[in-house]
Amino acid sequence: MQNRIFSQDLVNQVVNELKIADLEKATIGEVLLLASGLEQITGIPFIRMDQGVPGLKPCRIGIDAEKKALDEGVASMYPAAAGIPVLKEEASRFVKAFLDVDISSGSCIPVTGSVAGSFSSFIACNQRDKDKDTVLFIDPGFPIQKSQLKILDIKYIEFDVYNYRGGGLKAKLEELLEKGNISSIVYSNPNNPAWICLTEDELQIIGELATKYDVIVLEDLAYFAMDFRTDFGKPFQAPFVPTVARYTGNYILMLSASKIFSYAGQRAAVLCISDKLFSRKFEALAQRYSGSGIFGPVFIGEILYMITSGITHSTQYGYAAMLRAASDGELDFVKETSEYGRRAHRMKELFNKYGFHVVYDKDIDRDISDGFFFTVGYKDMSCAELMRELLYYGISSIALSTTGSEQQGIRACCSRMHDDLYTVLDERLRFFRLDH
Amino acid sequence: MQNRIFSQDLVNQVVNELKIADLEKATIGEVLLLASGLEQITGIPFIRMDQGVPGLKPCRIGIDAEKKALDEGVASMYPAAAGIPVLKEEASRFVKAFLDVDISSGSCIPVTGSVAGSFSSFIACNQRDKDKDTVLFIDPGFPIQKSQLKILDIKYIEFDVYNYRGGGLKAKLEELLEKGNISSIVYSNPNNPAWICLTEDELQIIGELATKYDVIVLEDLAYFAMDFRTDFGKPFQAPFVPTVARYTGNYILMLSASKIFSYAGQRAAVLCISDKLFSRKFEALAQRYSGSGIFGPVFIGEILYMITSGITHSTQYGYAAMLRAASDGELDFVKETSEYGRRAHRMKELFNKYGFHVVYDKDIDRDISDGFFFTVGYKDMSCAELMRELLYYGISSIALSTTGSEQQGIRACCSRMHDDLYTVLDERLRFFRLDH
Repeated sequence: MQNRIFSQDLVNQVVNELKIADLEKATIGEVLLLASGLEQITGIPFIRMDQGVPGLKPCRIGIDAEKKALDEGVASMYPAAAGIPVLKEEASRFVKAFLDVDISSGSCIPVTGSVAGSFSSFIACNQRDKDKDTVLFIDPGFPIQKSQLKILDIKYIEFDVYNYRGGGLKAKLEELLEKGNISSIVYSNPNNPAWICLTEDELQIIGELATKYDVIVLEDLAYFAMDFRTDFGKPFQAPFVPTVARYTGNYILMLSASKIFSYAGQRAAVLCISDKLFSRKFEALAQRYSGSGIFGPVFIGEILYMITSGITHSTQYGYAAMLRAASDGELDFVKETSEYGRRAHRMKELFNKYGFHVVYDKDIDRDISDGFFFTVGYKDMSCAELMRELLYYGISSIALSTTGSEQQGIRACCSRMHDDLYTVLDERLRFFRLDH
Repeated sequence: MQNRIFSQDLVNQVVNELKIADLEKATIGEVLLLASGLEQITGIPFIRMDQGVPGLKPCRIGIDAEKKALDEGVASMYPAAAGIPVLKEEASRFVKAFLDVDISSGSCIPVTGSVAGSFSSFIACNQRDKDKDTVLFIDPGFPIQKSQLKILDIKYIEFDVYNYRGGGLKAKLEELLEKGNISSIVYSNPNNPAWICLTEDELQIIGELATKYDVIVLEDLAYFAMDFRTDFGKPFQAPFVPTVARYTGNYILMLSASKIFSYAGQRAAVLCISDKLFSRKFEALAQRYSGSGIFGPVFIGEILYMITSGITHSTQYGYAAMLRAASDGELDFVKETSEYGRRAHRMKELFNKYGFHVVYDKDIDRDISDGFFFTVGYKDMSCAELMRELLYYGISSIALSTTGSEQQGIRACCSRMHDDLYTVLDERLRFFRLDH
């Protein structure tokens, strides 16, 4: 191990200082503190592949609209509980433009980031029917969503989709759904961390079973249209982004501004609820909240309002302006974000050059897209082993085991790569290879 | 009832349109929709005493700092989970300047408004000890906090402090605390809706009992320093704002930007947790979240981060700048907000002139302050009756019964009053008096 950049002692020292109980199970937050700590002590920069943060400049259109709203005095006024009308309308128009799905503006509800969106959706979906008390994750997935359930004492089950792509998905899902206890199905598409993309056929399976077993699909579209194998960036023109919304009336889409507009700092997302679900009455909601029990109004008035009482007023104007510019064809957010695809492509080449392999490599019969994340394994190294070993060579990542995956490898985020770093990555991977 | 401005038929029609199940139990949200609806149909403006919204311009210092932060690119970067350092430091300095209390910056945590602050605090306080599963409200109070507990399935008890001021508070509290099931005590000071102010003696009783029975006090300081009988507006100089923090180490202060800086639209508050509580280990938290169980880190990393993943980045800079200006003595927010005291004073004069009386009228032996809210009753009319009758005369308010009060009357918010409206209010109250 003579080529290590950070010694085992030094890494252990920082692990102890940060009180990380088990490096092999380290959360994203712990890994990034560890990498920053090592950078600080040694002055040697890391290749930071850990946290999924935007690596592009924030969208100027949003910033300008926020500043204008601030000058107009919105800071003193509580935003409407259901969101400001212009953002609701632009969200409705955006899903029509890029998904070709009809959702009325009333069913599009701003939330303080998709994190707040899934947290509140779990509450609403699980309280709507006393018999449906368990969430189903199509993994790998975003660990925060499971942590949310820990706060709320909600049960969940999960499976790694790796071996259940295509037609195999149907039998697997039916086996899990037929007990009748599943309230909701969660996945992200493109997938965080694996960057696989469920196909329209797979989404049709999910949608039809959601209807059959009365389950609500929470579709996380954080990386909207970032399957760069296809250009989804032309508003109101095919091809449209794949979505379960075409195949069931039981869905909530989570549309985050964080990655598509590089706007993570302002905490803005919109929940787009199917009109059918929005207007459906649930007896359990009527009982708990002594009211109509209609899903949408209960969700807004009795749940979301009680968690944050709306989302930052100026940010709603900023998000609305960015969505409008995208739907008007003035802002090609797909072209902007396709930079991530180029970065991932170059990084994967380097990993391949030094004997690594992409773990989640196929969408059934097609090579996966280059995008925000990818997964790599090395020989027969376990998740935790590879994550830890890469740290010694100045490369931080996330062990796949923390994401519900049963495969061995790590998640790499390409967002922080820039031109100067490829030669550094090349050298570090070469050193790693020499030692392993 | 010949002098009514809105007929019973018209009011009933809008009540039906809005699907308000029971006007007598109408929530704030329903009352404001009803008042807006009647204004829209008739073109006749209401005297809007319903929602507690800022009636002053948003603080320019905050707006300028937000715009600067936006220009510097903070919109793309996730804010630190614990809040940005400058806001944490300024919050710590502000509580020293105006409360004369020492809380380190690490224990000051930004949240998406005090609503998110109380929601998450209820979770943390109730999960820390399995035997302490019930919240105690010193009422009257803010109905949203009870609605939050309905979402979370947390039990609560409550009592109207009206008959338990001064020494009587101790016996009442001990009676409720000695069962050992109380996790936290909640109140606002100055009080929403009654505008009573607990005295230092009363806060000492609460603090000492909180220590004795290991209960966490959630002190809501939304109307910070708005007891205008005393000028609390000089930083680092007595007199200091009364607080329970002087009498126990078991507290969380909720410091909202909404009213003191007229910044409600941006959803910003800071939770100031006592350092003692912040660093205390709880076995139940360690078990649930498989970690250290230290209150502060669990609260930030396992609860707050999972609900909104931080608060709007630019807004944190805005809030920090306003706190700094206040502590530097450059922004006299007490003088700014004392406008509410003048409005309340004039409104109370008119109510008195027409036979109304202030319901919560004393802090033990002292007349209450004029401020953001006040309460009025009329003869022997019930809460619901008075609230409804005033609607016919174009005056919207909140029935005290919805706030945990056992007294008869309504809450009036003075924030939307302006000079042109006093003659209108005078006439409407005169009409009301003629008919009753």
